[in-house]
Amino acid sequence: MKKKKENNSVSGLKIIPLGGLEQIGMNITAFEYEDSIVVVDCGLSFPADDMLGIDLVIPDVTYLKDNVDKVKGFVITHGHEDHIGALPYVLRELNVPVYATRLTMGIIENKLTEHNLLRSTKRKVVKFGQSINLGKFRIEFIKTNHSIVDAAALAIYSPAGVVVHTGDFKVDYTPVFGDAIDLQRFAELGKKGVLALMCDSTNAERPGFTPSEKTVGRTFDTLFEEHKNTRIFVATFASNVDRVQQIINTAYKFGRKVAVEGRSMVNIIDTAMKLECISIPDNTLVDIDQMKNYPSEKQVIITTGSQGESMAALSRMANNMHRKITIGAGDTVIFSSNPIPGNEKSVTKIINELLRKGADVIFQDAHVSGHACQEEIKLIYTLIRPKYAIPVHGEYKHLTAQAKIAASLGIEKDHIFILSSGDVLELTKEQAKVTGKVPVGAILVDGLGVGDVGNVVLRDRQHLAEDGIMIVVMSLDKVSGLLAAGPDIVSRGFVYVKESDELIEEARHTVDEAIQSCLDKGITDWGKLKSTTKDVLGDYVWKKTKRRPMILPIIMEV
Amino acid sequence: MKKKKENNSVSGLKIIPLGGLEQIGMNITAFEYEDSIVVVDCGLSFPADDMLGIDLVIPDVTYLKDNVDKVKGFVITHGHEDHIGALPYVLRELNVPVYATRLTMGIIENKLTEHNLLRSTKRKVVKFGQSINLGKFRIEFIKTNHSIVDAAALAIYSPAGVVVHTGDFKVDYTPVFGDAIDLQRFAELGKKGVLALMCDSTNAERPGFTPSEKTVGRTFDTLFEEHKNTRIFVATFASNVDRVQQIINTAYKFGRKVAVEGRSMVNIIDTAMKLECISIPDNTLVDIDQMKNYPSEKQVIITTGSQGESMAALSRMANNMHRKITIGAGDTVIFSSNPIPGNEKSVTKIINELLRKGADVIFQDAHVSGHACQEEIKLIYTLIRPKYAIPVHGEYKHLTAQAKIAASLGIEKDHIFILSSGDVLELTKEQAKVTGKVPVGAILVDGLGVGDVGNVVLRDRQHLAEDGIMIVVMSLDKVSGLLAAGPDIVSRGFVYVKESDELIEEARHTVDEAIQSCLDKGITDWGKLKSTTKDVLGDYVWKKTKRRPMILPIIMEV
Repeated sequence: MKKKKENNSVSGLKIIPLGGLEQIGMNITAFEYEDSIVVVDCGLSFPADDMLGIDLVIPDVTYLKDNVDKVKGFVITHGHEDHIGALPYVLRELNVPVYATRLTMGIIENKLTEHNLLRSTKRKVVKFGQSINLGKFRIEFIKTNHSIVDAAALAIYSPAGVVVHTGDFKVDYTPVFGDAIDLQRFAELGKKGVLALMCDSTNAERPGFTPSEKTVGRTFDTLFEEHKNTRIFVATFASNVDRVQQIINTAYKFGRKVAVEGRSMVNIIDTAMKLECISIPDNTLVDIDQMKNYPSEKQVIITTGSQGESMAALSRMANNMHRKITIGAGDTVIFSSNPIPGNEKSVTKIINELLRKGADVIFQDAHVSGHACQEEIKLIYTLIRPKYAIPVHGEYKHLTAQAKIAASLGIEKDHIFILSSGDVLELTKEQAKVTGKVPVGAILVDGLGVGDVGNVVLRDRQHLAEDGIMIVVMSLDKVSGLLAAGPDIVSRGFVYVKESDELIEEARHTVDEAIQSCLDKGITDWGKLKSTTKDVLGDYVWKKTKRRPMILPIIMEV
Repeated sequence: MKKKKENNSVSGLKIIPLGGLEQIGMNITAFEYEDSIVVVDCGLSFPADDMLGIDLVIPDVTYLKDNVDKVKGFVITHGHEDHIGALPYVLRELNVPVYATRLTMGIIENKLTEHNLLRSTKRKVVKFGQSINLGKFRIEFIKTNHSIVDAAALAIYSPAGVVVHTGDFKVDYTPVFGDAIDLQRFAELGKKGVLALMCDSTNAERPGFTPSEKTVGRTFDTLFEEHKNTRIFVATFASNVDRVQQIINTAYKFGRKVAVEGRSMVNIIDTAMKLECISIPDNTLVDIDQMKNYPSEKQVIITTGSQGESMAALSRMANNMHRKITIGAGDTVIFSSNPIPGNEKSVTKIINELLRKGADVIFQDAHVSGHACQEEIKLIYTLIRPKYAIPVHGEYKHLTAQAKIAASLGIEKDHIFILSSGDVLELTKEQAKVTGKVPVGAILVDGLGVGDVGNVVLRDRQHLAEDGIMIVVMSLDKVSGLLAAGPDIVSRGFVYVKESDELIEEARHTVDEAIQSCLDKGITDWGKLKSTTKDVLGDYVWKKTKRRPMILPIIMEV
């Protein structure tokens, strides 16, 4: 009887993005059907400019913790930080299995090892074409192409229908490693009927088609031919194994030895070698220490730091801060990357530094995107023909750009959903609508602290960063209620004190007068004394400097 | 006899950039010949990302102050902040005359009025084609095109030869206002012989030709045609009078009223109207307050804030923080601008916000650069045929890009000088070489303070921004040498104290023990007590949190 009722009921499939919408990074989406929740990806994001001192940002998974009995596992599309980076933090609170393809799992395992979570985490490597059953869900992994090997799209089967999630993808007919995106499977799914498509929006503003990764290989051939007599450095993203493969291929063609430099890149290439996702000819890869045994024109150094990160290998080699290698006159540096938005200035800084050192810098044509442009997005929509479209992975402008594409392909406007993180989109075969909201948010990680830096602390840091701090200390006599010492003023980040004696002394005098006047009137309430200090000193400093340092009165009782 | 000696001597012309090289902004260059110094431009730059709390940056003009008797005046090429912005600060220390074209002087005068310097500053408006004599120099103003009206190149005549300084320029055969760049005069000068060319490098990396400003006008026509039924906002640079002229032209064509919003834009347009650099049809410009009397499709609002500045009009109108206008569904917002490097994220933020509010955002094709691309730079070199090339205006990569162009045109490599700020380049008819170095630097302006924030204060602000501050206060008894109160710990920007009682209490206890142990051993030296506090607390906090807040011990004696 109970069973029958269930069969007759029209339970909805809930899609609940817990991050990743209206922002870059922190991709995580819960799929819920009755007693089952499956979570796709678990990424981090990098701190916004106003998140001073923060190392990284992870999603608030309160909703998952509140429904921990339902959560069947994490299904991961690929091994980029914005899709896996929060796993070590979230798994600590929510110990559920992790499913991913081979290289993705290899990278996740490196991370779990670092965080001492490898043994406690159940993991399963899934092959393309294979499905896994997770409660009421079945999840099929479908081959795609992206700027990292082994990226997957997911077909998420639920009793309410099939949802296809592309993950991050591009259409590469001639990939460097493995097969092209499995367009036939997309077509097959589309033919059978897909309830909703969640498609990567990153490049939805860009017309045309993203070129094949192979085109970059041809560029390397040309550039190596043009720079036969110099040492060559290539800076690229640590995780782009295919890019590294192509650099190695070209280096081998030109009889050069290759060293890989930068911790994150060394780690990923090691993993890729173990998993045979990269194939390196014998005697090509050498240790960075061995490079000195070869003439310059026989060397290629592949390095991290293409975003101008000040602590990465490229920056250290350019600034004579690297223990083994210094880039200088006669060297050629190829940037095989584009600046990620927000990094333009730091990239320019390192380019200027390299040029100043006499290096030849090449910053064009040696990179292609890993994300689908408009024509590729249209291709996927046309193969899948979803009933509902849910643009994902991007800021609001990217999501709306994809929404426009979907509409141009004939999807009705009220079948296109631009969701916000926390929205509960409930779908049945008949309809889709946002039916609720779950708590979501960004949890800041600073050092070992996860979530102990919130808005109050950030506001204080911003205030301190802007104009510094003035601390006013005074001691009150417990018995007499009179000043036993102080007020003294100590400042940091406000003015150069040694050259501002007069200003500080006058400020001290102003506070002293105000406090004495309070005490003379019998006012000994600490709250009142502190607010008087803040007011009087704040006004004085603003008048003199047009600055508003944080003012912190401290009273001690002796 | 003395006269004869002078004629026979081969005095060198010294070119001394005091800023503007290897950086964007802060353009200022001294030209010195015997007892005469003429200074070209006097710009500011905007603070780098690590200059926390700083409002703007001005050049160190110690060299000019040390040679004040020689300084004949400032010659200004055009009215952009990076060429005039430091004038009010520098003129206060160096009261010399200012020479500029009409609109440039109008903008300078607004600035001087704000700083109460108008009466004390000698000013002379110079016409194109006109020359002024300044000591041993004669300076001729030559018409160019740029993203602001009345931009000039300078021919700087000295007994050692003629130097042509292009200022910021592009070649616009069909400018919106006034004449095209005076290429004939460039050719004439070249024919007679030019010693050195100092040419704008901003776009030296870009191939081709910068399109005419007029092309943007045609884009406006198309966009207005396509958005006949909505209110239209156009965001652009405050100082681009030609752009505003074209928006007004198109608005007039389509029967719309125009309001200008944003203080800096209103000021410049007012000045341009007074000087007849802009021509506005009757009954077209209306006050922002009057706009409500017209239907949406009859309104155009030209606004500042195209760089995503959070306090500018566009941002306020998008965020419901503007007193009179709110942008929402049905509005069209045209960005007639490109993000200046470093502003990409803030521009994206405002675009996302506008889209979220339901506005249609157009961010393409409604802008052209104001700087010469490679083919224009080649044209100027080919007309001028200078003996020496000194690329100016740009970061190192821009300067080297122009150096490559100069070399490709046959200028010998050792006749091309990439200077650093402070270099003294000495030129005679026979040779050119860097013969010295003068003091240069960046002076930080923060509120009313000019130069009172230096490296120490900035380092403190960076430290405070990163991890906050922990203040440890204690009172020592003057007589017994024992603790009379404390140690107490107060923190800001470190952790959210209310949720970290235990951490702070344990920290306090750790410091207390260490201090007691010192005092027990008879150690009462304040320096020692403070350093013990720093060490003990720093270690404890690092161990517990992996953070390094600033630790500030304060001891009071009672």
